[in-house]
Amino acid sequence: MTRTLAINTVNKVGQSVLLKGWVNTRRDHGKIVFIDLRDRTGLVQIVSSPELVVGLHSEDVIYVTGKVLARPEKLVNPKLPTGTVEISAETVELISKAAELPFDMGKDDLDLELPTLLDYRGLTLRHPKVQAIFRVQEVIIDAFRQALKAKDFLEFQNPIFIPSVPEGGAEVFRVKYFDREVFLSQSPQLYKSLLVSIFERVFTVNQVFRAEPSVTTDHMTEFTSLDAEFGFIDSWAEIVDMAEYVIKFILEEVQDKCASELAMFRAVIPAVPAKIPVIKMRDAQQLIFDRTGRDVRKEKDPSPEDEREICAWAREVHHSDLVFVSHYMTKYRPFYTYPDDEDPEFNQGFDLLGRGREWLTGGRRIHNYQQLLDHAREWGVDSQDIEIYLQAFRYGMPPLGGFAFGAERITKFLLGLDNIRQATMFPRDMERIDTRFSKTEK
Amino acid sequence: MTRTLAINTVNKVGQSVLLKGWVNTRRDHGKIVFIDLRDRTGLVQIVSSPELVVGLHSEDVIYVTGKVLARPEKLVNPKLPTGTVEISAETVELISKAAELPFDMGKDDLDLELPTLLDYRGLTLRHPKVQAIFRVQEVIIDAFRQALKAKDFLEFQNPIFIPSVPEGGAEVFRVKYFDREVFLSQSPQLYKSLLVSIFERVFTVNQVFRAEPSVTTDHMTEFTSLDAEFGFIDSWAEIVDMAEYVIKFILEEVQDKCASELAMFRAVIPAVPAKIPVIKMRDAQQLIFDRTGRDVRKEKDPSPEDEREICAWAREVHHSDLVFVSHYMTKYRPFYTYPDDEDPEFNQGFDLLGRGREWLTGGRRIHNYQQLLDHAREWGVDSQDIEIYLQAFRYGMPPLGGFAFGAERITKFLLGLDNIRQATMFPRDMERIDTRFSKTEK
Repeated sequence: MTRTLAINTVNKVGQSVLLKGWVNTRRDHGKIVFIDLRDRTGLVQIVSSPELVVGLHSEDVIYVTGKVLARPEKLVNPKLPTGTVEISAETVELISKAAELPFDMGKDDLDLELPTLLDYRGLTLRHPKVQAIFRVQEVIIDAFRQALKAKDFLEFQNPIFIPSVPEGGAEVFRVKYFDREVFLSQSPQLYKSLLVSIFERVFTVNQVFRAEPSVTTDHMTEFTSLDAEFGFIDSWAEIVDMAEYVIKFILEEVQDKCASELAMFRAVIPAVPAKIPVIKMRDAQQLIFDRTGRDVRKEKDPSPEDEREICAWAREVHHSDLVFVSHYMTKYRPFYTYPDDEDPEFNQGFDLLGRGREWLTGGRRIHNYQQLLDHAREWGVDSQDIEIYLQAFRYGMPPLGGFAFGAERITKFLLGLDNIRQATMFPRDMERIDTRFSKTEK
Repeated sequence: MTRTLAINTVNKVGQSVLLKGWVNTRRDHGKIVFIDLRDRTGLVQIVSSPELVVGLHSEDVIYVTGKVLARPEKLVNPKLPTGTVEISAETVELISKAAELPFDMGKDDLDLELPTLLDYRGLTLRHPKVQAIFRVQEVIIDAFRQALKAKDFLEFQNPIFIPSVPEGGAEVFRVKYFDREVFLSQSPQLYKSLLVSIFERVFTVNQVFRAEPSVTTDHMTEFTSLDAEFGFIDSWAEIVDMAEYVIKFILEEVQDKCASELAMFRAVIPAVPAKIPVIKMRDAQQLIFDRTGRDVRKEKDPSPEDEREICAWAREVHHSDLVFVSHYMTKYRPFYTYPDDEDPEFNQGFDLLGRGREWLTGGRRIHNYQQLLDHAREWGVDSQDIEIYLQAFRYGMPPLGGFAFGAERITKFLLGLDNIRQATMFPRDMERIDTRFSKTEK
């Protein structure tokens, strides 16, 4: 018999089916045993005599044949997509026996401390609410890809080995590479910019690495960066518009495709008006002074507190949960950032803030070869270290810019998770790669 | 005026347009100058008076306004998609001046030695025939994704840091990770298998790393691996079928979407019958003996020469450019490979060969926890090193298997390229990461 997926049983009332999956929960009621069987489409209830299911418990892998019965109206479970049916078991075959679980996996919320959640990652990912996080993440990444493909962007695979660290950077990982040392990519910035001279419009879904020497709720040593870059722009506003289009597309896709996942987390998609407000950093600092009396007008960057206040303003005045802040101080940003023509002390970079946090960062880049060389020199970047990149500019580069954001961060923000590790299948930090280092000291 | 892309000029005869792109080639004919302008959609011919284009040469970035004219029948260029029109230039603005080119980029073939091709990667990628390679590669990767999504596979982002090297492995890269050492992923095998216990069907497009201590035409230190894995199989034949489905889907997509790219390389998509032939290794060795008299019947693995002979057989007897070879010797394969129930000396692993080369590798994996533990012990794998992976099996794993192949390899094979580096945007090997190491010795 061909396998029927749990979700498809609702269309097979009266028919015999073969189901394959895991015992999610087992409830014994004397002469009847109820088993919620879980497969990739969700749960369905099996009704069995005790004899057929002797010794079965949670996470055992079983194959069940039986008949699909409509449940009496009173017993319909409205919380379950298959709540209108149940399967009357005829045969139950044990395929893989599971060990006794170290904790209850059958509750709606997997109520574990973070270290335990991660120590048992090979098990806890099975929980429907944990699974849901990564179903949402897949939709986010797909939406990013789909939005940009619709605008003629080409996807490339960013390399991870880099020959040098042009801007120094304490937070770079070093790799023994035969008889020399190379580094791990912290960002695809130079490659994606270079590729604008080839394909005009490119994006990449790529792993990036930061040797973060501290453990915070927002940082890991490895994460998935969603990066886009494009050329032939007339002004930096086009980059803001493209970032806005992509973010809105993602929000709509998650709203459309992840209703049940959003419901599990009681998550609400951010409200955005027709045009997300844009404010220059100095204007935002003036606003903060006007609204709170705190004088941050000479600070070189907004603090987290400032960012929350800017978001509060955007919400109150523009009814927007998202807001772009632009024109940061040129000298504190990377050498390739484009200084504003009218006021070169500030640049044409921007961040997208949402609910008090930084969601995305982007900006226009210098395209003029001589200006880029001058900046590199001023910033202390050895041009030999970025030879391939500079080639692209030496032989004619159009005006360009782009943006980037972390897939895990956006997932965390959208679902309202406490810690970035919850939004990462296999989080890596200075304390853990899969197993906690403290557990493996030999 | 809004920008018109080169390809769209053919629908705008008589209209004024603004074009943006690079000078691909310039031909001076006294009072008239012809410029082929290149943008992401291809080439279009500009006709200009010499005054408008003084000093312009290849790779300069220009903005051109002018009128689209139909070419007289006799001057239509059938080799160019825009060959029915030309643009009579009215204004030409220089946006970015290019340096003099180190070699001619205007020919149909970029006739360079490989080291030069790569030393100037920031420039040579611009050549239409080089670009074409990566347009095909994007289609291959997209097709892989699309084929599996249609079969309910979930995409995940494979982690690159790994805590240990379960099987020893000389060819692993080591990273200084705070006060300890970790490693770079050689394959997502353990993670993709683990995830079958969560999502049943998964795939990943991921960078993998091999410390290849030699320079060959087929190996690099970093490449893009396309990996799939799925559970609830009834036999290993289902894995072969899934691999066949994916490869055929890719071939069809490339055939449909890359006609002009294939033509550039005079590449022909491999012929495949309704069912790609499958042959056990020992049977293949017998065949080779029967066909050639070479006795390889006791060899533990087919040699490259053997693989070519197997392909010749498949071509002659089954009219197939592709052939699966299965049932390799269990003891020479990884600990998780599933031994054949009837003849456990051989396993349920397989390779897909095409035109004498290995295209893809796959197989069934052990799903029984105790058997997996026993194998790990026998193979000398420390179970502490794969704790998260073993968890998934300890708590109930369905029968499973999967396959993997390199994006660059398939690109190379399909286009008939000489060297894997041609199919890699930024190839890394022991001699080069972007710049040749010998050039940067300080």
